[in-house]
Amino acid sequence: MTDPSFFDPKPRSLEEIAAATGATLLNSQAAQKVIATAGPVEAAPKDSISFIDNPKYLPHLEQTGATAVFCHEKYADRVPKRVEILVHSQPYKAYATALSLLFPTAARPQPVTGETGVSSHAFVAESAKLESNVIVEAGAVIGEGAAIGRGSHVLAGAVIGANVQIGRNTTVGINASVLHAFVGDHVILHPGVRIGQDGFGFAMGPGGHRKVAQIGRVIIQDHVEIGANSTVDRGSNRDTVIGEGTKIDNLVQIGHNVVIGRHCIIVGLAGVAGSATLGDYVVVAGQTGIVGHIKVGDGAQIGGGSGVNMNLEPGAKVIGTPAMPVRDWVKMNMMLKSMVAKSKSGGDKTE
Amino acid sequence: MTDPSFFDPKPRSLEEIAAATGATLLNSQAAQKVIATAGPVEAAPKDSISFIDNPKYLPHLEQTGATAVFCHEKYADRVPKRVEILVHSQPYKAYATALSLLFPTAARPQPVTGETGVSSHAFVAESAKLESNVIVEAGAVIGEGAAIGRGSHVLAGAVIGANVQIGRNTTVGINASVLHAFVGDHVILHPGVRIGQDGFGFAMGPGGHRKVAQIGRVIIQDHVEIGANSTVDRGSNRDTVIGEGTKIDNLVQIGHNVVIGRHCIIVGLAGVAGSATLGDYVVVAGQTGIVGHIKVGDGAQIGGGSGVNMNLEPGAKVIGTPAMPVRDWVKMNMMLKSMVAKSKSGGDKTE
Amino acid sequence: MTDPSFFDPKPRSLEEIAAATGATLLNSQAAQKVIATAGPVEAAPKDSISFIDNPKYLPHLEQTGATAVFCHEKYADRVPKRVEILVHSQPYKAYATALSLLFPTAARPQPVTGETGVSSHAFVAESAKLESNVIVEAGAVIGEGAAIGRGSHVLAGAVIGANVQIGRNTTVGINASVLHAFVGDHVILHPGVRIGQDGFGFAMGPGGHRKVAQIGRVIIQDHVEIGANSTVDRGSNRDTVIGEGTKIDNLVQIGHNVVIGRHCIIVGLAGVAGSATLGDYVVVAGQTGIVGHIKVGDGAQIGGGSGVNMNLEPGAKVIGTPAMPVRDWVKMNMMLKSMVAKSKSGGDKTE
Repeated sequence: MTDPSFFDPKPRSLEEIAAATGATLLNSQAAQKVIATAGPVEAAPKDSISFIDNPKYLPHLEQTGATAVFCHEKYADRVPKRVEILVHSQPYKAYATALSLLFPTAARPQPVTGETGVSSHAFVAESAKLESNVIVEAGAVIGEGAAIGRGSHVLAGAVIGANVQIGRNTTVGINASVLHAFVGDHVILHPGVRIGQDGFGFAMGPGGHRKVAQIGRVIIQDHVEIGANSTVDRGSNRDTVIGEGTKIDNLVQIGHNVVIGRHCIIVGLAGVAGSATLGDYVVVAGQTGIVGHIKVGDGAQIGGGSGVNMNLEPGAKVIGTPAMPVRDWVKMNMMLKSMVAKSKSGGDKTE
Repeated sequence: MTDPSFFDPKPRSLEEIAAATGATLLNSQAAQKVIATAGPVEAAPKDSISFIDNPKYLPHLEQTGATAVFCHEKYADRVPKRVEILVHSQPYKAYATALSLLFPTAARPQPVTGETGVSSHAFVAESAKLESNVIVEAGAVIGEGAAIGRGSHVLAGAVIGANVQIGRNTTVGINASVLHAFVGDHVILHPGVRIGQDGFGFAMGPGGHRKVAQIGRVIIQDHVEIGANSTVDRGSNRDTVIGEGTKIDNLVQIGHNVVIGRHCIIVGLAGVAGSATLGDYVVVAGQTGIVGHIKVGDGAQIGGGSGVNMNLEPGAKVIGTPAMPVRDWVKMNMMLKSMVAKSKSGGDKTE
Repeated sequence: MTDPSFFDPKPRSLEEIAAATGATLLNSQAAQKVIATAGPVEAAPKDSISFIDNPKYLPHLEQTGATAVFCHEKYADRVPKRVEILVHSQPYKAYATALSLLFPTAARPQPVTGETGVSSHAFVAESAKLESNVIVEAGAVIGEGAAIGRGSHVLAGAVIGANVQIGRNTTVGINASVLHAFVGDHVILHPGVRIGQDGFGFAMGPGGHRKVAQIGRVIIQDHVEIGANSTVDRGSNRDTVIGEGTKIDNLVQIGHNVVIGRHCIIVGLAGVAGSATLGDYVVVAGQTGIVGHIKVGDGAQIGGGSGVNMNLEPGAKVIGTPAMPVRDWVKMNMMLKSMVAKSKSGGDKTE
C-alpha cells in the first residue's frame, strides 16, 4: 500500500507520461486520462500505470486495475481494449521513469526536518564551501575545507569530513559519514553508509600487528547508489573507486584499493576484499565474497553466497565456494543429492 | 561480572519473585529471603536466583552459589536442600522474567544523558506530535508530522522521518533511523538500525540501471526487537512487514516487500531478499541467505550459513547451500569426509 | 594517489626514519636525503620510501621511483645502487612505522570539525569526567558518569553511554556508540561501531520469546581496532572481551559473552556467536561464522566463508562449511571437480 502521507503522488496525464518516457500512446484519444499511481500488473490499483516486461504476465491484464500499461509493440494486440497501451522497447525502464514522475519524493531520499538551507542545529566549519540550494539538516556536521555542490543534501546527523568534495544533486543520508573522498553528482548514500575510513591494513606478526597508515582516497563517480550501513574503505596507496552508475545494496563491505567499474550491481551482505578489481556491468549477488587482488571481467555474474577466489573472465557466470561455472554447480549438486539418496535406500547395509 | 554502575540491581524477596513469575515457592518459610542478582547455575553468585532448564545442569547445583532456582516439578527432588525451589513449568522463561525484575534498567535500552522530556539539544519539528512521557535525547531529530506514543524513547542521535508513527513504550536506539514506517508498541530498535530507506530496485540493463522509486512502507508490529546496525528496507509496491514478537539480531538485512510472520528469530548477518515471505515461528540462523520471492512455512528452522533458494514447508529443518534437510546434509558431509579419507590412504596411486 | 589535502605529509630524512624504525642505513652519506611519501615498490613515486618483504618483488626495484627501501640483510646486494637500503629484519613492520611518521594524520582517525576541546555543539553530562586534551566534537554526546581519558577523541555524532570508561589516546569514531563498556588505551573504534548493546538472548518458545536481560559488560583492551559498522554485544552474565591488540574489520558481529584473545585478526562480515572463546593470534577470514560456545585455540587460522561448528586445536588451519583441514578441503574440491568433469564427458549416457 502506498501511503500518501509518505509519498505525495503527483497525478499526470497519459500524454505527459508518454512525453517523459518516450513511449507512444496508441490511443490518442486517451491523452488526457489521468494516472495517479502505479503498480505491477497483478496488483495495479485503479487509475494506475503498469507494465508488461515478460509475456507470462499478460494473463494478469484481464483483471488488472491499471488504466494503462507500458508494453513492447509485439504484445500490444494481447492487451485488453479497456487498458491503454504505451508502446516502448524497454517497458520496465519506462515504468521506472513514470514512477519517479508520479512519486518524485520517493525517487530521492528526502530531507526529514522541513528546514531549508543550513539548519541552525547543524555544524558547518567556517572554511567549508557550500554552493547554492544545499540543504544541511539538524545534527549534520560539515568539516573544515569541505565543499558541497549545488542542490546536494546532507541529511540529519550525517558527517562530511575535512576537505571532502561532494558533487551536485547528491544526497548524503541520515547518520552517514564521508571521509577522504571525492563524491560525484547524483549520488545517493543511504543512512549509515561509511565512506573513507581506514582500510584494514596491518603489518602482522608475532609481537602484534602494526597499523599501516592508509593514505589513499575514495572516488565515487556519478549516479552511484550505496545502501544503508554499507562500508567503503579508502585506499592504502591507491584510490578505492566506485564506478559511474554502480548500485550497491545494504551492509556491503568494499575493501581498500578496490576498483569497481561502471554499472555494477552488488547485493546485500556481499564483500569485496582489498585490491580486487571489478569490470563494468558485473553482478555480485548477496552474501558473496570476492577475495583480495583478483580481477573480475566485464559482465561477469556471480551467484549468491559464493566465494570467488580466482580471476573471472568477462561474461563468466559462476556460483559456489569455491566459485565454479553455474552448470557445474548444478551438476555437482545433482550428483551429491543422488549419492545421498542412494545411500539412504541401501545405506544401512553398506555403511 | 555485573557492574552495579551499569545495571543498578533491585533486590527482591522470593515471595515477590514468585508472584511476578507465577512460580510456586516450595518452602514458604523462605518467602522473605532476598535475591540480589542472577546467573546460570554453574556460575550463579551468592544471593542469586538461577534455573534448571535441562537435567544435565542438575549436577552443578551441588556447588552453585544460588539461593534459589526455577525448576520443573519433576526435578524438584534433585535440588539440594540448601537451595530454595521455585516450581515453574517453563523455568527459563520464569528466570527471564525474574532477571528483568532484578535489573529493570537492563531489560530495555536506557537513555544515556539523564535528560527528561525533550532535550534542548534535540530537534523536534513543530508539526510533530509527542504523547506524554516521551524522551527525546540530545542530538535526536524528529521530522515533520511524526508521532511518538506515550512512554517511547528516542535516544541520542536517532532520527525519526517525516510522518513516521511510533507506538508506545518503544525505544529507538542511539543513532538509529526510522523512515516511512509505522512502528508498534514495546518495540526495541538497537543502535544504528536503519528502517524504511529505499529498497534495492532498478530497471537494469545496458545503458545503466534506472532507479525504481520505492513507494511502500515498513510496518513493525508490537514487541519486535531489531539488533544493532540491521537494515529493513521499505516496500517497493507493498509493505515490508515485521510480525509481532519477531526478534532480529545485529547486521541483518531485510529486503523490500519482505513479510515476516510472528515470533520469528533471525540471527546475525542473515539476509532475507526482496519479496520473500516467512511464516510464524521461523528460525533463521546466522549468515543464512533467503532468496527473493520464496515462501518459508511456519516453524521452519534454517541452519547457519545456509542458502535457501526454494519454498520451505512448514516445520522444515534445513541447512546448507542449496538448503537441504538436515539429515541429508549430515549424511552428505559424512560421505564427502569418507571419500577424502579414502583418497588419502590410497591417494597417490589413483590420482 | 595520496592527496595532500587529506594527509598532509611530513617529509623526513633517511636518518630520522632509520632512527624511528631501528633500521640501519647502509650508506651513511645518504642520511640527509629527504623522503616525502611512500608506496609499494612497483608503484613507489619519486622521493618515496618502500620495502621488500618478499624476494618476488625484487625485480620491481629496477624501475622503482623509491629513494630508499627497507629490506632484509640477505637481499641487500640485489638492490640497485641508486636505491638506498635500510636494513631491517621485519621490513614491512619498519615500513608501517615510517608511513605513520610521514603521514601522522593518516595513522589515527582525525577530528573533522577543527574544534578543540569540547564543542559547544556537543552534549556532555555534568557528571561526566574528562581528562586533559580530550576532544569532543559537534554532535557528540557523553552520558552521565562517563569518564574519558587524556588525549582521547570522541568524534562527531559519537555517543558514550552512562558510566562508560574510555582510556587514553583512544578514538571513538563518527556516529559510533559505546555502552556498558570499559575501553582501554590507544583503541580505535571506526565510524558506526556499536559496542555494548543488548546481546541476543531470549527464552524462546510457544507464546513468544521472552527477553533475557543482559547484565554483563564489554571489555575492550588496549590497542584494539574495530572496523566501521561492526557490532559487539555486551555479555549476558559474563563480560564480552576483546583482547589486547586484536584488529576487527568492518561489519563484523561479536555476540554476547564472546572472549577474544590478544592480537587476533577478524575480517569483514565475519560473525562470532555467543559465548565462543578465541585464543591469541587467531585469524578469522571474511564472512566466516563461528558458532556459539566453542573454543578456538591459539594461532588457529580459519579461511574465508567458513562455518566453524566445533572446537579448534591451537594452530589449526581450516576452511569450509563445516570447517575442515585446508588440505582436506582442497582434496574434496578436486574430487568434486573431477566427478563433474567425468559426468560431463560421459554424462548424457549414464544419467
